[in-house]
Amino acid sequence: MSSRDLISEFRQFLDAGQILLEGQVRDRFHHIWKTDEPLRAKAVLLPRNTEEISKILKICNSCDQTVVVHGGLTNLVGGTETNPNDVVISMEKLSAIEEVDESGRSMTVQAGAVLEHIQLAAQEKDLLFPLNFGAKGSAQIGGIISTNAGGLRVLRYGMTRNLILGLEAVLADGTIISSLKKIIKDNSAYDVKQLFIGSEGTLGVITKAILKLNEAPKSRNSAFVALENYPQVLQFLKYLDQNLSGTLSGFELFWNESYRALTSPPSLNKPPLPQDYPFYVLVETLGSHQQNDKQRLQDLLEKALEEGLILDAIPAHTAAELQWFWSVREDLDVIINQCNHDQHFDISLPIPAIGKYVSSIKQALANIAALETCYPFGHVADGNIHFVIGKKNDSQELVDKINEVVYQPLQRLGGSVSAEHGIGLHKKRYLNLSRSPQEIELMKTLKRALDPKGILNRN
Amino acid sequence: MSSRDLISEFRQFLDAGQILLEGQVRDRFHHIWKTDEPLRAKAVLLPRNTEEISKILKICNSCDQTVVVHGGLTNLVGGTETNPNDVVISMEKLSAIEEVDESGRSMTVQAGAVLEHIQLAAQEKDLLFPLNFGAKGSAQIGGIISTNAGGLRVLRYGMTRNLILGLEAVLADGTIISSLKKIIKDNSAYDVKQLFIGSEGTLGVITKAILKLNEAPKSRNSAFVALENYPQVLQFLKYLDQNLSGTLSGFELFWNESYRALTSPPSLNKPPLPQDYPFYVLVETLGSHQQNDKQRLQDLLEKALEEGLILDAIPAHTAAELQWFWSVREDLDVIINQCNHDQHFDISLPIPAIGKYVSSIKQALANIAALETCYPFGHVADGNIHFVIGKKNDSQELVDKINEVVYQPLQRLGGSVSAEHGIGLHKKRYLNLSRSPQEIELMKTLKRALDPKGILNRN
Repeated sequence: MSSRDLISEFRQFLDAGQILLEGQVRDRFHHIWKTDEPLRAKAVLLPRNTEEISKILKICNSCDQTVVVHGGLTNLVGGTETNPNDVVISMEKLSAIEEVDESGRSMTVQAGAVLEHIQLAAQEKDLLFPLNFGAKGSAQIGGIISTNAGGLRVLRYGMTRNLILGLEAVLADGTIISSLKKIIKDNSAYDVKQLFIGSEGTLGVITKAILKLNEAPKSRNSAFVALENYPQVLQFLKYLDQNLSGTLSGFELFWNESYRALTSPPSLNKPPLPQDYPFYVLVETLGSHQQNDKQRLQDLLEKALEEGLILDAIPAHTAAELQWFWSVREDLDVIINQCNHDQHFDISLPIPAIGKYVSSIKQALANIAALETCYPFGHVADGNIHFVIGKKNDSQELVDKINEVVYQPLQRLGGSVSAEHGIGLHKKRYLNLSRSPQEIELMKTLKRALDPKGILNRN
Repeated sequence: MSSRDLISEFRQFLDAGQILLEGQVRDRFHHIWKTDEPLRAKAVLLPRNTEEISKILKICNSCDQTVVVHGGLTNLVGGTETNPNDVVISMEKLSAIEEVDESGRSMTVQAGAVLEHIQLAAQEKDLLFPLNFGAKGSAQIGGIISTNAGGLRVLRYGMTRNLILGLEAVLADGTIISSLKKIIKDNSAYDVKQLFIGSEGTLGVITKAILKLNEAPKSRNSAFVALENYPQVLQFLKYLDQNLSGTLSGFELFWNESYRALTSPPSLNKPPLPQDYPFYVLVETLGSHQQNDKQRLQDLLEKALEEGLILDAIPAHTAAELQWFWSVREDLDVIINQCNHDQHFDISLPIPAIGKYVSSIKQALANIAALETCYPFGHVADGNIHFVIGKKNDSQELVDKINEVVYQPLQRLGGSVSAEHGIGLHKKRYLNLSRSPQEIELMKTLKRALDPKGILNRN
């Protein structure tokens, strides 16, 4: 089918404002987050409901037209990059929160709903949607589900996969798979929604979801803690886990250089603790009684200090201090903006192996002349570490060299080249370090079974 | 291939003690739990490792030989029933706990490991594998994973799906899919292990797993609580969830008739509270400080009593009382043994709908003359209710009639005919009440892609 014929097919059921072509596409849309890289695509379609998405896919499938789905574009792995021959489906007009079911503790949302709006809608009913990460103001729930996003509270509430009760998705051929039930347990044969969670839009387009909500905690407490070495970090995690049973919700680790950079100018955040300790952990508890829970955390920190388990600690005493502590963790732009060129990593490992791995990576990276800075930090209780690496140039050769250093040891250590961001286009060539040939073959079998023409998010 | 040829193929790599034929099969094995129904099968094979299972399946697949996998047989839905032409793979010789990784908080187990052994192995290292249910002394982890079992602590720790870090399974054609990593987060493309969790052995045979362990709680507290009506049950659940943030681990509901039956002779359990309240809830918390957590629960119950939210309450003051309270919940044989014939249900619903649903089912069942007793109870915080129904005869007509009454309304209410037990053979004809034609078609697509000859657990 020619491009003109294709567009005229779309015009049968989409109005003029729902089909953007050439010039409009370049003006209104980009395809890489936080860049002004203009979008390359045959057309951008803005469906208003699931049925329109079904019709679009049916047409595209019938003529082998590749499709890329655009949500908030925050994936960081090139998962939403396009080429000029792609049709883009934007979820912009599918952003409604359809229902907050207070007594059933669930929320029904369209795929384009933004995470921060979802959090606020839950909060209004004294409920909590616990998923939380830096890009919450842009990230859309459809993309979040399709990448099985993680974030800052996986330790307590799990990945996105654990927060989904029901899902609606459209297959490549336009078939609508509606698994929109508000039930927690459903073992009536295959749990087909699992296919669409974490498969980055390659097996179907997520159009709607029913999210599981929790009761909102009545207390939130945090503290910055300084530690001598990585084995102590592990001991301290175990100590808190044992003594805060069920209320521990955050345990974010910073290596010295990352803490120092995040608490020095141009950052507006002053250091909560002196900057010369080897390791820092930002702890969070979510509980039911502000005063008691604060006291409990404080007592535990004092005992840990007395026993020499930690070197220093400072609890957040006010809401402003809490805000300040978490700004240190979340204002990563401070370090990103200092890099001439930046390269980001999101890897996972068995937790006990992380300390030595990061040391050896830092050493190996130090041998690369064009490398300027390396900041490791992350969700260590989930075995998930991020690196922000600053470098002198942006050559592909340098990108590849750094990738090699970071990714290569993961295979031997039983880690993953992607903990929570997905594979997208950027990590495709490293997938074989995380997955066996048999696993990859099985993935291909699934792709062939569900999208035989390979039209969906072709990556 | 003739039966004789098939067996001689197996003899190439299995020794005499690993192949049981006709007479031996009938003597040593049954295929329905808690019955003496002799096993019907061509042979029972007892592999000792994954490679042997791979070879067995390769042979069976090449000659269209159907295979049924036998674990602890506790599924209750006919998932392990066989016919005389099947080959049975028993996991009996694959029962090892290969490793308990204390610092990584994981356990590597073979598929035939029994749940209770796993619980104890974790306990020895001061860790917790939270999955827990009545059949723990028989149920094997391979079967547990393949049915995504639930149980008594889903509220806090999730279903089996949430407790699996890594998995090894063998496809119908003998391909070994090894996803045996000890990492919590792994978004490196499709999470293929999800395919095998909850698909009842129809997409592959689970051979090994890496389980996620939690820190063992330092306190366990329980109380029996009496309530006036179902809306109060919901209010009380919300109240506890809000005020016990993260430590609430059990919330088991009994309708009056079930509580009464479970606390009257021939049961050895006396009633913890008088028997004339409409509803009873058994609450459990797992925390970090025995005295404080006990006091916290007691304070909350007193406040709930004062405010009229509950009618009565009794906390367990000693380990013996704790044991007694939970015996009331777990000794279901007391009511099962009183039935002339029994029929069991495991359904789920949106939580707010459960009260009215159970009332209407009880009313409808009362019109069936051959029905004697109906005991509803269950994991109400997960939207999961069980019924044990006693009846005068075991005719298929009566079975079907009762199934109709219980299952039919679930479609309209957005519930499921199987919350945690699976579909097996017994619920196949009711699957369409839980799943749409498109979902069922997608399941068939998956089955065709992974097991094109349909040899695995043919159901």
